[in-house]
Order: sequence, then C-alpha cells, then structure tokens
Amino acid sequence: MNQQMIAKALEQVRKTNPLVHNITNVVVTNFTANGLLALGASPVMAYAKQEVEDMARIAGALVLNIGTLNETEVEAMKLAGKAANGHGVPVIFDPVGAGATPYRTLTARSIMEEVNVSVLRGNAAEVAQVVGHHWEIKGVDAGEGNGNVTQLAIEAARQLGTVVAVTGKTDIISDGTTTYACQNGEAILTRVTGTGCLLTSVIGAFAAVLNNPLEAAVAAIVTYGVAAELAAKESADQGPGSFQIALLNKLAQVTGEDVVRLGRVELL
Amino acid sequence: MNQQMIAKALEQVRKTNPLVHNITNVVVTNFTANGLLALGASPVMAYAKQEVEDMARIAGALVLNIGTLNETEVEAMKLAGKAANGHGVPVIFDPVGAGATPYRTLTARSIMEEVNVSVLRGNAAEVAQVVGHHWEIKGVDAGEGNGNVTQLAIEAARQLGTVVAVTGKTDIISDGTTTYACQNGEAILTRVTGTGCLLTSVIGAFAAVLNNPLEAAVAAIVTYGVAAELAAKESADQGPGSFQIALLNKLAQVTGEDVVRLGRVELL
Amino acid sequence: MNQQMIAKALEQVRKTNPLVHNITNVVVTNFTANGLLALGASPVMAYAKQEVEDMARIAGALVLNIGTLNETEVEAMKLAGKAANGHGVPVIFDPVGAGATPYRTLTARSIMEEVNVSVLRGNAAEVAQVVGHHWEIKGVDAGEGNGNVTQLAIEAARQLGTVVAVTGKTDIISDGTTTYACQNGEAILTRVTGTGCLLTSVIGAFAAVLNNPLEAAVAAIVTYGVAAELAAKESADQGPGSFQIALLNKLAQVTGEDVVRLGRVELL
Repeated sequence: MNQQMIAKALEQVRKTNPLVHNITNVVVTNFTANGLLALGASPVMAYAKQEVEDMARIAGALVLNIGTLNETEVEAMKLAGKAANGHGVPVIFDPVGAGATPYRTLTARSIMEEVNVSVLRGNAAEVAQVVGHHWEIKGVDAGEGNGNVTQLAIEAARQLGTVVAVTGKTDIISDGTTTYACQNGEAILTRVTGTGCLLTSVIGAFAAVLNNPLEAAVAAIVTYGVAAELAAKESADQGPGSFQIALLNKLAQVTGEDVVRLGRVELL
Repeated sequence: MNQQMIAKALEQVRKTNPLVHNITNVVVTNFTANGLLALGASPVMAYAKQEVEDMARIAGALVLNIGTLNETEVEAMKLAGKAANGHGVPVIFDPVGAGATPYRTLTARSIMEEVNVSVLRGNAAEVAQVVGHHWEIKGVDAGEGNGNVTQLAIEAARQLGTVVAVTGKTDIISDGTTTYACQNGEAILTRVTGTGCLLTSVIGAFAAVLNNPLEAAVAAIVTYGVAAELAAKESADQGPGSFQIALLNKLAQVTGEDVVRLGRVELL
Repeated sequence: MNQQMIAKALEQVRKTNPLVHNITNVVVTNFTANGLLALGASPVMAYAKQEVEDMARIAGALVLNIGTLNETEVEAMKLAGKAANGHGVPVIFDPVGAGATPYRTLTARSIMEEVNVSVLRGNAAEVAQVVGHHWEIKGVDAGEGNGNVTQLAIEAARQLGTVVAVTGKTDIISDGTTTYACQNGEAILTRVTGTGCLLTSVIGAFAAVLNNPLEAAVAAIVTYGVAAELAAKESADQGPGSFQIALLNKLAQVTGEDVVRLGRVELL
C-alpha cells in the first residue's frame, strides 16, 4: 500500500458511494453521517433488531461502535454483525471506552468473539483492554499510555486474528504479519468529539471498495489524516468548532493528489 | 399560494413561534432543533410514552420521522399521532428509508393507516414505497429513480388521502387535486445529513400557523429552498460543513422579500 | 467568589481535565461533548444500567439532564446519582422542560428526592415547577415568566437544600443564604439548542475541581457567559449557526484574563 494506491482507493469510494451501515453512539451520529457524506460514501444508521440484518446484508460495510452501548443495541450489533459475516460484508469495530467500565470491556470482548471483525480500531488503551493487557485509561478519551504501540498492534492482530489499527500520534495498522505506520493527523483532532468514531466509519467506506481490510484501514487513516491537516490549515487558530466544520469541508475536497503529496505512510 | 402569501406565512411563524413536537431520528435531532429555532419556531423533542400525548396536544404541529426507528419509538409515534389527531394538531410524517428494509416500509404504512397524517414528505423512492409502487432505493439517501414524479405525488395523495410532498430536484406538492412545483434548493443539500428531515419539521412549523396543509407544505418548501440558495451563496465553495452552518444562519435571516424575489413556485 | 477566583478555577479545569459523566438528552450530546472538550474537561456519555454506577464513581462530576427522558434512562440516572452520592462525586441536575408535561415535572421531583443533587440549574419556569410554584411554561424553551427570580432561587435553594442556579437575562445562583447575580451572556444563546444544557455540564466541570458547589456554579456561569460574549463578537451578525461554532471556539480560548476583564458578578 502506497500513496498512489490510496489515491486510487479514494477515487473508488467517490465513484461507488458505498452504503455504510453504522450502529454507533448517540454523541457522534450526526458528525459521522456528515463525514461519510462529505467523503462520498452513503451513510445509514439503523438499530432496530427487526431491520439490522436486512440493512447489514445490503451494505458495503458495517460499523459497530459501543460509545453509548446498551443491552438492546449490543444485541442488534451482534445480529447485524452475523448477518454481515454471512454475506461477506466487512465489519469494522470501535471499542469506545473499553476499560472505562467492566461492562464496556466485556461487551467489546464478546463482540470480538461472536462476530468476525475485519478491522478493530481504537486507541492504545482500548485495544489493550480488548486483548486483556493492562493499559492506563481515563474515560473514553484516553490513549497515550506507556508501552510499545507497534508491539501492541501486532500482538492484538495475532491474538484476535483480525486487522488492528491503533491510532494516536502515530497510527499503527497491522494484520499480525504486515504492519504500517502512518504519521498524518493533527493534535486538534483530540479536541473534537467523535473524530475517532468518524475515522472508524471512514475505514468502513474504504473496506467497502477494497477487498483487503489492512489496505482499507491504511487508506482510510492516511486520507483522513491528510484531510485533518488541510482542515487545520484552513481553520488556523480559530478553535475546535471551526476545525470540526473545516474537517467536513476537507473530507469532501481532499484529492488523490493531496494524498500523494502529503500522505506519510511506511511499511515497518 | 404565491410568493406574497408565503412571505406572510413566514412572518406568522416568526410572530407566533409555534411549538413543534418532533419524534425524530438520533442523527438529526440537534440540526432539526437548531433549524427550527433559527427559523423562529420553538422545537421540542419528547419520546416517552408517558408524555408524548401530553406534549402533542399542546404543540402547534407534530412531526414523525422513522430515520432510526425502534419498537418503543414507533409505539410513541402512534400514541402521539392519535393525541394530535384528537386535538386538531397537524401531523407531518417523514418515512425515512422506506423501502430500504421491510421493517421500515411496513412501519411507514402502519403509521399512515393508524394516524391521520396532514402532510407526507419524502423523496420519490420513499413515497413510492409507502403507496406500494416499485421504485429503486439505496439506503436512506435514494431518490432520483425513474418515473414521473408529478404523477407519483398526485396518485399518492389520492390513495393516501393526504397532502404529499415529493422532494428532489423539483419538489412536487399535491393534495390529489391541486398540485404545485417548486424549483428552489441546491444540490449541496444532498451532501448534508438531515436536510430532508429538517425540511419536514419546517413544514410542521408552517402547518402550525396555516390551516391549509397543502399551502403549509408549499410555503415551507419554498422558504427552505430560498434559504438554501442564500446559504450556498454565502458558503460558496467552502464545502458541506460550511454550508450546514450557513443554512442555519440563513433560516434565521431569510426574509419575506427574499421569498418574493427568489421563490420559484408554480401551480401545475 | 470574585473574578480572580473564577480565573483560577478555570485554570484548574484546564490543568486537571476532569472527567464529566453526562446522562443527557439526544438533542445535545454532540454539542455538550464538544463544549466540554473545548473548555478542557473530559466528557463521557454512559447510559446503560450495567455501567452507570461504575462510570459515575470514577467521574469528577455527574450531570443529569431529562431533555429526552424515558423510563430506562431515568432509572439509570437514579442509579448513577446514588453511586455518585456514595463516592462524594457532585451531581448537577438540569430539569429540562419540567412543567411542559406531568411526566417531566414528576420525574424532576423524584430525582431531587432520591438523589442528593449539588446544583440544580434551569430557567425560572423549570425551577419553579421543581419546587411546586406556578410559573408560565411553553415547551422546553420557556423561561421569562413573571415573578421575582432572585426570590425564586433563594426559596428553591432553601426548600430543596441545594444550590440553585436560575438562568435567564440575569443569572441568579443561591444556596439559600449566599446569593450571586451574574450579568454575562448574550441573547443569541436562546437561538441555539442546548446552550443551557451545555452550561449545566460546564457547572459539572467546575464542580469537579472546586469543593464548593455554589462557587462552582458561579464560576461556570461567568466563564460561559464571557465565552458567549466573545463568540457573539466573533460571529457578529452571521447568525445562530456561526454563533454555535464560535461558542465552541471561545470555550477553548477564553482566558482567566478575559474573565477578570469581562466577568460581571455581584454578591447580593
């Protein structure tokens, strides 16, 4: 996976407008839908157990996010996940706040057990909790703990048998064998809620057009990071409100040329 | 209904600040509330079966939207709808994603059967599904299928015995006898989530101050389309994030004079 | 409490990034999380009965808001509230729309009875309903009724045995003995949904770093009002969409010096 291939994948997303089915938290639904629309994907949110299987089957990707989980929603996530699995629809999982409470940690693990997840994306603390390592966590915005993030991503990928994307200052994406490091992104992303959740959904959009989950995660993370950098430039020092809006603008405007010029990804 | 009458209706909305009770989807709640507030209406979201009847009774209009429907919410919608019916409060219905899953289609139809709806607003695919015609649909953002939209609106209005507003490039509003076509609006509306849902709620605001649901729908659609055009001009090529914010600004600032000058509506 | 002490409290919020656990309404979740993040606090939304006690215990403050209440959520609020009480975590309560329906009024009162609330924040109509006085109300955005707001705040504080903040043109904060009046803020706050709800959560952020709920409420209200004034200046006459974004920007940028220079608070 290199910048040229990512640029091509971005073009495919915009050409095919993949339907991305999100079962996500109530904090980020609007921002997630707008981010996917801006990028060129077609978002749908559907939660009822009466329809999640039907929706997941016709989607290009299914994104599960436990940010404001409850019993009913978790049940719907598993139904949707299994339906997606049965129809070759990639499932992307964001274990928001795993480790903050036992309920989140156990739910995250049970989803990983019952659903065949193509890509797990979280910060280091969340990913560590899913695989059972100890890592410092505070609420849902934790992330910079101690420990070797690259090693965590590789071990988690091997243990879980899936692609793992650990995002932070440097983003590490691994399938246990092949591992990439991405350096794009901006610190101000941490001052806007849902930027991680939206990234997970953007991975869904790329997974819908690429057959390779590892490459989809890398392509999404680089594209998103480049858009964030352009947004930070546009919104300058105006603050997180303006950055949020600029990020939506730039998800619509970022080009393959921007990705080739600004993308910073390397195979480790 | 002409531009002058629409301008007068807009003035009435701003003078009376009608309470619009929304039972709507989790993606658009914030945008809907802000859009109604900007326009000059007074939004309230209330979902619990213990209070929806009380709230609907004191509202100027009730707006039902199945974008992220579930069993409990649908039950609340029907309770609220019947309470509104019993007190002469107009009910506006948005069958988001009807056709995307059987559950949505059947729920949309059952709401139309059990509640006396004053205005049904959807894109062509959704409206067609509610009346049982075949129309192409993809997720919840579908809309431009093949078929004569004007004919669909008229037939649906006759079959359902209500005002039907089919929105798209051209918006068609019909009560089965009288039919209007509106040409306002901007393509970028399709790049921002919830712009259709907000329009449905804006119809509620106008229905609260006009006794005629057909005229309320026309007035809302023209006013909203003009505001969108002003917003597109203000936000120029900045992108969908900026357009979303500009639309809220312009819903607050659009004047009767703007409507008279820019409104494009004709009786068919 | 004076401007210098408020400036110092703001510094403490930014230094300690307190975790604020919100059980709030679906309309304002995104705006609330972004406002808290902008200010320097660490927001978390968690609603499931399986985790609210665990989350409340590790939080710096718990914020309860009944804007879109339902049975399950109210149960979770009480569980979380009692857990917070048991661990010395201050609870801030926003009785959104109390008086609009009997269900809201009764729920607001039952929360006040079952949970030891540190600060109750609402408009005059809502606070009056919680203590059982008659006050005019329309939907959830009411507020400017007739009656002496200062007297209401003092009486409510005495009757409820808690700090009461009645916000409106002038904000009155009282513990029944000591009473402050704040004059900061902007009229345009009423044109953006959730500005009151976010303020309640901001009180939570200050309550997490100050041991005194009365002073926390005053500090939050003055800081927020000053940020709103700076935001109104930045967004000028652009409209409520731009003001909303500017408010997030200014919550991130407002300094202790701004508070000292612009804060208008007096001990009554």
